[in-house]
Amino acid sequence: MATDLSQPGLARKQIWTAPLRRILTSEAGQHVGERVLIAGWLHQFRRMGGVNFLILRDRSGLLQIVLNDVRSLPHVLPESVLQVSGLVVAESRAQGGYELHDVEIEVLSSVTEALPYSIHQPQINVHLDPFLDHAIVGLRHPRQRAMLRLSAGLMAGFRATLNELDFTEIQSPKLVGAATESGSNVFEVDYFGRPAYLAQSPQFYKQMMTTVFERVYEVGPVFRAEPHDTTRHVNEYVSLDVELAFIQDHRDVMAVAEKVIGGMINYLTSHCDGEIGLLQAVLPDVRLPFPAIHFPEAQQLIFERWGEDCRGEPDLAPQHERWLGQWSNETYNSDFLFVTGYPMEKRPFYTHPQPSDPRYSNSFDLLFRGMELVTGGQRLHRYQDYLQAAQARGIQPEAISGYLEAFRYGAAPHGGFAIGLERFLMQLLGLGNIREATLFPRDLNRITP
Amino acid sequence: MATDLSQPGLARKQIWTAPLRRILTSEAGQHVGERVLIAGWLHQFRRMGGVNFLILRDRSGLLQIVLNDVRSLPHVLPESVLQVSGLVVAESRAQGGYELHDVEIEVLSSVTEALPYSIHQPQINVHLDPFLDHAIVGLRHPRQRAMLRLSAGLMAGFRATLNELDFTEIQSPKLVGAATESGSNVFEVDYFGRPAYLAQSPQFYKQMMTTVFERVYEVGPVFRAEPHDTTRHVNEYVSLDVELAFIQDHRDVMAVAEKVIGGMINYLTSHCDGEIGLLQAVLPDVRLPFPAIHFPEAQQLIFERWGEDCRGEPDLAPQHERWLGQWSNETYNSDFLFVTGYPMEKRPFYTHPQPSDPRYSNSFDLLFRGMELVTGGQRLHRYQDYLQAAQARGIQPEAISGYLEAFRYGAAPHGGFAIGLERFLMQLLGLGNIREATLFPRDLNRITP
Repeated sequence: MATDLSQPGLARKQIWTAPLRRILTSEAGQHVGERVLIAGWLHQFRRMGGVNFLILRDRSGLLQIVLNDVRSLPHVLPESVLQVSGLVVAESRAQGGYELHDVEIEVLSSVTEALPYSIHQPQINVHLDPFLDHAIVGLRHPRQRAMLRLSAGLMAGFRATLNELDFTEIQSPKLVGAATESGSNVFEVDYFGRPAYLAQSPQFYKQMMTTVFERVYEVGPVFRAEPHDTTRHVNEYVSLDVELAFIQDHRDVMAVAEKVIGGMINYLTSHCDGEIGLLQAVLPDVRLPFPAIHFPEAQQLIFERWGEDCRGEPDLAPQHERWLGQWSNETYNSDFLFVTGYPMEKRPFYTHPQPSDPRYSNSFDLLFRGMELVTGGQRLHRYQDYLQAAQARGIQPEAISGYLEAFRYGAAPHGGFAIGLERFLMQLLGLGNIREATLFPRDLNRITP
Repeated sequence: MATDLSQPGLARKQIWTAPLRRILTSEAGQHVGERVLIAGWLHQFRRMGGVNFLILRDRSGLLQIVLNDVRSLPHVLPESVLQVSGLVVAESRAQGGYELHDVEIEVLSSVTEALPYSIHQPQINVHLDPFLDHAIVGLRHPRQRAMLRLSAGLMAGFRATLNELDFTEIQSPKLVGAATESGSNVFEVDYFGRPAYLAQSPQFYKQMMTTVFERVYEVGPVFRAEPHDTTRHVNEYVSLDVELAFIQDHRDVMAVAEKVIGGMINYLTSHCDGEIGLLQAVLPDVRLPFPAIHFPEAQQLIFERWGEDCRGEPDLAPQHERWLGQWSNETYNSDFLFVTGYPMEKRPFYTHPQPSDPRYSNSFDLLFRGMELVTGGQRLHRYQDYLQAAQARGIQPEAISGYLEAFRYGAAPHGGFAIGLERFLMQLLGLGNIREATLFPRDLNRITP
């Protein structure tokens, strides 16, 4: 153990004295026959015959290091951070085809305790709770890193597609003065002695901003104080929000939603090849338009095909969504299915009713592999309609006057949708629990790390 | 007034019955001699001689509409939302060179009340408070829209530059279990009956994530419960955060910071020409490297040149920053100036001291036109150093155990910085108050709209 590293005096010395510029392990092949400097985490240490092998991991991958004299390695445990200079040699038996010889090693940070669980196997073998307790260790595993890279890719694909479609990015406030979007299930904040709330979604703001830019999107955190403990819900997640004006009805919104989903998948295909391969992820085949079924027809189908009579119920249960996903797959060979026209009674007050039958709404969910991924629809746009709709739900217009002002001074017919980032990743990879797709999940029992 | 529009029956009818596909007003020139459909907000209505002119505004600009028969216009007030079909005619006297003749008008949303203030002048002439009370009206003004487009451009430029530099985007949680980063000035949240806090910054998480990806960035809201009432502070803002591992010291961080600032400015230059022109924004000349001065030298300079003896004080006051900005401009012809080595006593516990003189730190601020825009530096990276630094500040290691775990299991030398998005826009445009650069500002007195 390099105990001296923990002495304050030494910790103050200049730590990086190498005369060489660091290269990434993935760049080793461009430097065969040269001395290079690499740096990263001690991934593995193996003795084979009289030779010692170190595997060093950096953000680009792994590189094998050959140590003839074990005395050149300070006594450190895996995950210690090392800086290694050495000669690049081509070696077909090494993973990647290259290894480092004739090395000098400097320890930048020494690990002196065993990890809470191993991250050096092809899979991490630990239950979800201990995994999450020590997430910052588990996230170093190549599979976890690949998942988070896909998550970043989904965000990038979302933005790129919407920028192409002339949308403007906004950042709406998360601290709000009124908790009236869905009335309950909001987190309360002590705001200088007064109550404020955490935004459950950017819904109000994105609608308001259609009167400014017509087309807006936002990527940001949303907060739901729902006391659920399910595999599909967390209490803070990243919402990908879209809203656009000058639509005819919800079908124009659906057309944008499927373009965006397609753009996100295409982005992964063209930017995240390595991650997809490592995770053996099966990306959906995106053929537009996605199939669609009207809500009561979906219930009738479930009744006829699976014998469960949910006709007349105001919403679909998770099992219903799974059945519909199966049906869409069999019937249309599609991983996607729009369900349109959800009953008004379960939709928020700003929902636009279906003109031909106002029991139903101009709204939709998009199911992906049998689970709700996107919720959207057309909204009301006339001030008088808002006053009536709020009154009918017992919402005081004064409580949401800032929101209503957007409609009072002229809003265009508009609609939008939201995609849950973690939900998308979960379904894309077939994960059993949304917490596996969430960087540091927050739920009923977990507010750390 | 089109009173019938407020009747529930009519609000339910299909609202968009036009057989033509909508074009943007900016596309009129491509359709001379054709009948087109446009839609937008009634920007202005003028009678000149026997002819009536309407100006319609959409997200792309303005278009003049000629009305020979005033009866074809329903009685509506400005900002009503109209859909207009008509014949495109070239007309050199019209702004933009085209106008619409022989029109049919449909009202999509009628405004029946006067606006709280006019948004149809070259500038909005109203004080900040009433402006913000009705922000959703004021934001429709072309100047306000241009400002928000620049804000979106800064975010896009930030991400594009960092993606080029192999950084990974993360989204860290905003609900946190421990309020220990700066100890006070945090908002408390009722989290299912237990206390939780709103993140003051993604500082802990971005540092932790350098052990996963080496290089990470985040764009997201941060929350400061500081009871300040200044022109430079709001209580929620958008922070552009960066953190990178395998640095030698803070100078490597500064090199990335100036690349990122340069990339953001370049992005505006190449993507936001119209907005820059409209706002007559003077973008800074970005020549790298930016000039730099060490903290005590800066104080000595202020003493010698302006006669104010702030030597030995642990921080710079706003006036000091203005003087230094002036000096940098005169001496280096630069709008930027790095001040390095701020005294340890005013920097957070994770700050890396300056090896040659541990009274000072390996940290920096970047001044832009005489105001702090970026704060950053090198952090501690060894577990033992964290235990000592926390203890010295009275922080219980158990309270931040999730954070410390990143260092316990091997963190590389790292550092990073944060840019305040609204602060950047404020300085870029020479605004007098950061609230003018904030979408819906939150301060001591304002939590709505």
